[in-house]
Amino acid sequence: MHLLDDLPKTLAAEKITQLACGQNVRIERIVSTGQMSPPGFWYDQPGAEWVLLLAGAAELRFEGEHAPRRLGPGDACLIPAHLRHRVEWTDPDQPSVWIAVHFAEA
Amino acid sequence: MHLLDDLPKTLAAEKITQLACGQNVRIERIVSTGQMSPPGFWYDQPGAEWVLLLAGAAELRFEGEHAPRRLGPGDACLIPAHLRHRVEWTDPDQPSVWIAVHFAEA
Repeated sequence: MHLLDDLPKTLAAEKITQLACGQNVRIERIVSTGQMSPPGFWYDQPGAEWVLLLAGAAELRFEGEHAPRRLGPGDACLIPAHLRHRVEWTDPDQPSVWIAVHFAEA
Repeated sequence: MHLLDDLPKTLAAEKITQLACGQNVRIERIVSTGQMSPPGFWYDQPGAEWVLLLAGAAELRFEGEHAPRRLGPGDACLIPAHLRHRVEWTDPDQPSVWIAVHFAEA
C-alpha cells in the first residue's frame, strides 16, 4: 500500500483509514486538508498515541506548552495517555498525511 | 523528533532506534545502508509487524511470492505473525529509513 497515493485535495472532514490493528494497538492514516480542532477542544485520550507526519504541515499544541509544535514531513511525536493536546492548524493548501499508532501504555 | 535527521551514510549494521513502546507494542526506526538478510535467512516472527519505508529504496520478499516487493518512500506493508519474509535488498547508495511497529495480533 502506498500511503501518499490518491490524496484528496479537499475534504469536508479528516479522512481516517485503518491500516492495521492488534491487541491494544491500532494504526491509522489520517489525511487533513486544513482541518483543526474546534476552538477550546482538547483531546484527552485513555491510551498513548505516536504520530508521524508523512506529508504536509501541521501544528500540535500540548497543554502547558507556550507555543504549538510545528511538524513537517518526517516529524514524529509521542503523546502519553491523558496529555491534553489539540491540532492547532493543518495546511489548507496541501494534504497533510499523518500516521497514528494508538496503543496501551505498559 | 525528526526521523530523517542525522542519517548515517554508511553503517556496519542496520541502526535500530526505539521510538516508543507499550503493552505488546514497540515502534522502531531502522536505518539501512545496503544491508540485507543473509542468503537463506528468513524472519519468522511470533508477532505481527507493520513496516513503512520513509526514505530510500528496499525489496521485501515473502515466502510463496514469485518476486520481491519493491518499496519506496510512503510504501507500507503488514507482515502477519509467522509469515516468513526477508529483506532482499536495500539501496547501497542512500540511507533507507523504515518505521517498524511490532505488535501482538488480536
